[in-house]
This record gives sequence, structure tokens and C-alpha cells, in this order.
Amino acid sequence: MGNAEATKEKILEAAMEEFSSYGVAGARVDRIAKKAKCNKNMIYIYFENKETLFITVLQNSLKRVYEEITFTPDDLPEYAVKVFDFAMKNPELFRLMTWYNLEQNTVNLTERALVQQKKITEVMNAQRSGLIGTTFTPGFILTTIMVLATAWTPTNPFGPSYEPNTLKTPIETRDAIYKVINLITKV
Amino acid sequence: MGNAEATKEKILEAAMEEFSSYGVAGARVDRIAKKAKCNKNMIYIYFENKETLFITVLQNSLKRVYEEITFTPDDLPEYAVKVFDFAMKNPELFRLMTWYNLEQNTVNLTERALVQQKKITEVMNAQRSGLIGTTFTPGFILTTIMVLATAWTPTNPFGPSYEPNTLKTPIETRDAIYKVINLITKV
Repeated sequence: MGNAEATKEKILEAAMEEFSSYGVAGARVDRIAKKAKCNKNMIYIYFENKETLFITVLQNSLKRVYEEITFTPDDLPEYAVKVFDFAMKNPELFRLMTWYNLEQNTVNLTERALVQQKKITEVMNAQRSGLIGTTFTPGFILTTIMVLATAWTPTNPFGPSYEPNTLKTPIETRDAIYKVINLITKV
Repeated sequence: MGNAEATKEKILEAAMEEFSSYGVAGARVDRIAKKAKCNKNMIYIYFENKETLFITVLQNSLKRVYEEITFTPDDLPEYAVKVFDFAMKNPELFRLMTWYNLEQNTVNLTERALVQQKKITEVMNAQRSGLIGTTFTPGFILTTIMVLATAWTPTNPFGPSYEPNTLKTPIETRDAIYKVINLITKV
């Protein structure tokens, strides 16, 4: 890794921390520079402005999700618990997405939209070939998986307050998520 | 309604709009005063500071939820769709709760905790008397209801992007939510 690449990497790490704590509006470029131990100007040279830096951080994180969690349309309960495991380990990504939705008031990430469309098609195909039931639409099934698998991350308004112990012993919750997705993909 | 009460009411309305748009950190007391057509000092006299005002707005909104949506532990699918209807009509409340969770990084509203504890007890009792199944814990069932019923509000990272049409024709989604909660409370 060259010097420039190393600096970029450090900036992105510091930015992740800053943005997940304060969002875009509250984030301070000078604080990111300080954490990354670089000159503030480098941030503008490499990433244009605060907004572009935020989108870069968010898209990198989403890319990591796509790479780490294989989508298995023929085994959606297993996919759901993998998302759950990832969400419990990476709460800062969910903070980032939540800030994005609150501050932008829109969900409009091109690559993400493509990934989601691909998943919908794959679930539809799994339904057509009889691997999973057709009571629920692919979009509904995928939304259910995602909201349930991420319901116990610290910023969620429901999971942590209804079940404060999940953070300590997530295995029962993991198991229950598996069962719910199993139920809804069987009918 | 006296003059003081009318002013308080106007401040709370303006504050709801301001906080749901910008959160606590981003909200401006002078903007709230301008919208409420009152002197900025009145806000400090009636509500101490920006943080207290925010908590007052949030707790008033939650109280409205408790009053408008009757909890029916013996008919949880029906409860879930009532929450869905309410969530679709009042997206600003979900913005408010989400800001709260992001900015405070903790879920700690005394009255809300009491209401949640009461619901858990009621679901437990419904399970004991055989009205609903015991596969899932009361906390898990309630979390599933809440995350699913609110998954299509505009700030949710999943519902609106997987199913953009729900905002226009929510009836299919409403129906599907009913079915899921029916499935998980039968086992």
C-alpha cells in the first residue's frame, strides 16, 4: 500500500467513527483529520467534501456487507441469522445507514438498489421453483428478514428496549429469527 | 385554553416539526420561536432548554400512541396492523424516536419502559391461558410486531427501498403483516 493509499485508508477509518457518532451535519472535518493524523486539506483533495466522504464511507461499508454475507435464496432462515450476526458485530454501520436516512430523507444508493433488485429476482425464482412459499412477496420477505435481523442493534427503537439481554446472550434471539423466517417462507 | 396554554401548544407543535427534521443537535430554538410566533425566551421559561423540550415532545407523542392504539394481547395481528396504520400516518414520530436513539445512544424513557413491561406481562398471560403460542418469548413477539409494523415508514432503511409502492397501496403490506403475526403467535 502506497503512502496515498495508506492516508486514504486512515481518513476513511476516522470518518467512519466520526460519521457514525454524529451524522453528516454534526461531523467535523477537522476532527476527522486529527483522528487520521493528517492535514485537513488532504481530506478535501482525496474526497472533495464532507458529503462525498460520507457517501464513500457508507458505500464501502455496504460493499463489505455484500462481500461478507452470501445471499442464499434457497435458505433464507440461514441468511437471516448471518445478517443478525453481522449486525450485532457492526452496530456502527446501522448508525451510518440511519443517519443517512434521517438526514437525506431519501433512500437512493444506486449500487444498493441493484443488489436489492437482484435479491428480489432470486427470491422470485426460488418461489417459482417451489423452494419457498408464495404467500408473501419477495420484497415483503426481504424486508421482514432485514428488519428482524437488525432489530437488536443498539440504535433500534424496539429490540434493545424489549429485550435488553439480547446483547449479552444473542443465541436465543438468533434461534427465534431463524424460526420466524422458516415459518414465513414455508407458506 | 388560556393564553399560556395556547403558547405552549404552539411551541410544542413547532418543536415537533423542527426536531423531526433536524434532531436535537441540529434544531434551532430561534427557528422554533419563529414558527410558533413567540419570543425565544418563552421557550426557555416554559421548557428550560432544548433537550427538555425535545423529551417533552417525544413523550407527548408516545402518549398519543398509547392512547390511540389499544393493546390487544389476545389479538396481536390486529394490534400489529393498527400500529402499521398509525406509523404510515405519522412518520414524523418515527423520525423523532430515531433521532433520539442516534443522538442519545441509549433507550431510557421511564414511562415507555413501564408501558413495554406491561405489554410483556400481558403477552405472557395470554400465553399462559393458551390464547397464543409459546414458541417465541413475549419480548421477541413484541419486537417483531413493532419492527415489522414500522418497516415501511420513510426513514426505515429497508421497507421503502425493497417495496417502494407500499406508500401508495399499503393494503397488501398490511395484510401480509397480519398474516406474519398470526403465524408466529399460533406456534
